[in-house]
Amino acid sequence: MAAERDAVPLPALERLSTYIRCLMQLEHEGVVSVSSQEMEAFSGVSAAQFRKDLSYFGEFGKRGIGYNVQDLRERIAHLLNVDQEQNVLLVGAGNLGSALIAYPGWRAYRFKIAAVFDRDPAKIGTTIRRIPVQDLADLETANATIGAKIAILAIPAWEAQSVANRLIESGVTGLINFAPIKLQAPKHVTVREVCFICELAILSHLIHHPVAEPAPAESNGAGHSAPEGEPLILEPPALSPSDLT
Amino acid sequence: MAAERDAVPLPALERLSTYIRCLMQLEHEGVVSVSSQEMEAFSGVSAAQFRKDLSYFGEFGKRGIGYNVQDLRERIAHLLNVDQEQNVLLVGAGNLGSALIAYPGWRAYRFKIAAVFDRDPAKIGTTIRRIPVQDLADLETANATIGAKIAILAIPAWEAQSVANRLIESGVTGLINFAPIKLQAPKHVTVREVCFICELAILSHLIHHPVAEPAPAESNGAGHSAPEGEPLILEPPALSPSDLT
Repeated sequence: MAAERDAVPLPALERLSTYIRCLMQLEHEGVVSVSSQEMEAFSGVSAAQFRKDLSYFGEFGKRGIGYNVQDLRERIAHLLNVDQEQNVLLVGAGNLGSALIAYPGWRAYRFKIAAVFDRDPAKIGTTIRRIPVQDLADLETANATIGAKIAILAIPAWEAQSVANRLIESGVTGLINFAPIKLQAPKHVTVREVCFICELAILSHLIHHPVAEPAPAESNGAGHSAPEGEPLILEPPALSPSDLT
Repeated sequence: MAAERDAVPLPALERLSTYIRCLMQLEHEGVVSVSSQEMEAFSGVSAAQFRKDLSYFGEFGKRGIGYNVQDLRERIAHLLNVDQEQNVLLVGAGNLGSALIAYPGWRAYRFKIAAVFDRDPAKIGTTIRRIPVQDLADLETANATIGAKIAILAIPAWEAQSVANRLIESGVTGLINFAPIKLQAPKHVTVREVCFICELAILSHLIHHPVAEPAPAESNGAGHSAPEGEPLILEPPALSPSDLT
């Protein structure tokens, strides 16, 4: 499908990840079809924006009839590449690492925690939810077999960059970084920084100030106060094929 | 300062939270001034975007001279409202809650964990880093005294909505939600959802597909692969006073 080969702008990707989360929840509750208005109430993204975002899938859905929940979930899963099993490495078996392992959704998104690493001798050899904690020194050897492309850093700031370098050297091209430091990475590597304190700082502003409202054409009938990713983009970047690659 | 009363769009806020994090790190390292090109290399946001974002502070900085790190950090801190102490409630004293308490940055951003709540009798009465864990049943009583406006939910999905309702009832207007469920909240409440599995899903797409590039005028010389918040906005929403409220 040609549309799926197009580059999707980041704000749209973030909204799509919100939609699929909502769709999974709806599917779990046995809901078969959903309207864009219902998705607005559920996701916090306007119905108009939702319909625009679905243009990534070409012609799809019909006004007044709604969208098939499972079908839409599968299309988004395919676009996000979460419709096939992917190995993930986790570095850091402390409180955060343990919380991440316990996070629901790994299986639904077909991610598999292939290995957990830590440098603490007290942790190495133990298991967390039946996943053994390996010596961080063995990272390269382990990933030579596993071949994971994705890794999560749940370690302190001081060692995040050096461990990131080792992961990249061993074939990882995508990193989720929870360490409170901005990682430097080569161009072929994608880093998503999860900055908890940044979230608090953004919230701190938003509870005291009005947020810029979308233009009237994008107006959100639910009148929610912008709880999610990017409902505030005035106009989504056009998906012109000439802009791509 | 009039400019600071303007509504700042969410993508700009997210970039500002990245800048202040970088500036704090630079300040910590003793760096006195920084150029927009250096900020680009450090933050992953283009120098052009950085300069545009600083227009929220009116005339500031001079081409070729650079920005005073402390001054810029203080201006952003003021805009984000992290230049004065704010009480924060944390609900959930499990692995995630413990990791959040240990997260560096609370003091630098002047957030104070005023109370930690859990429903687990084994946790109630214990302390985490000298902060006592209180009974979740006492939430309303406690916040009648504390008056916190910000709360963090580090609890399972099944109880997140009901606890959020109680927090809102007790005066909280800003929530960071780590529970894997989309919260519903009244209009006066701002919710920031931190969806770990969404981050993984977005990364999963990005490592297999090109991301939409910014327009040439916004081109990022560093050629990084969009590691942060919103470097892909083609044109930042104009800060026209007539759009504001």
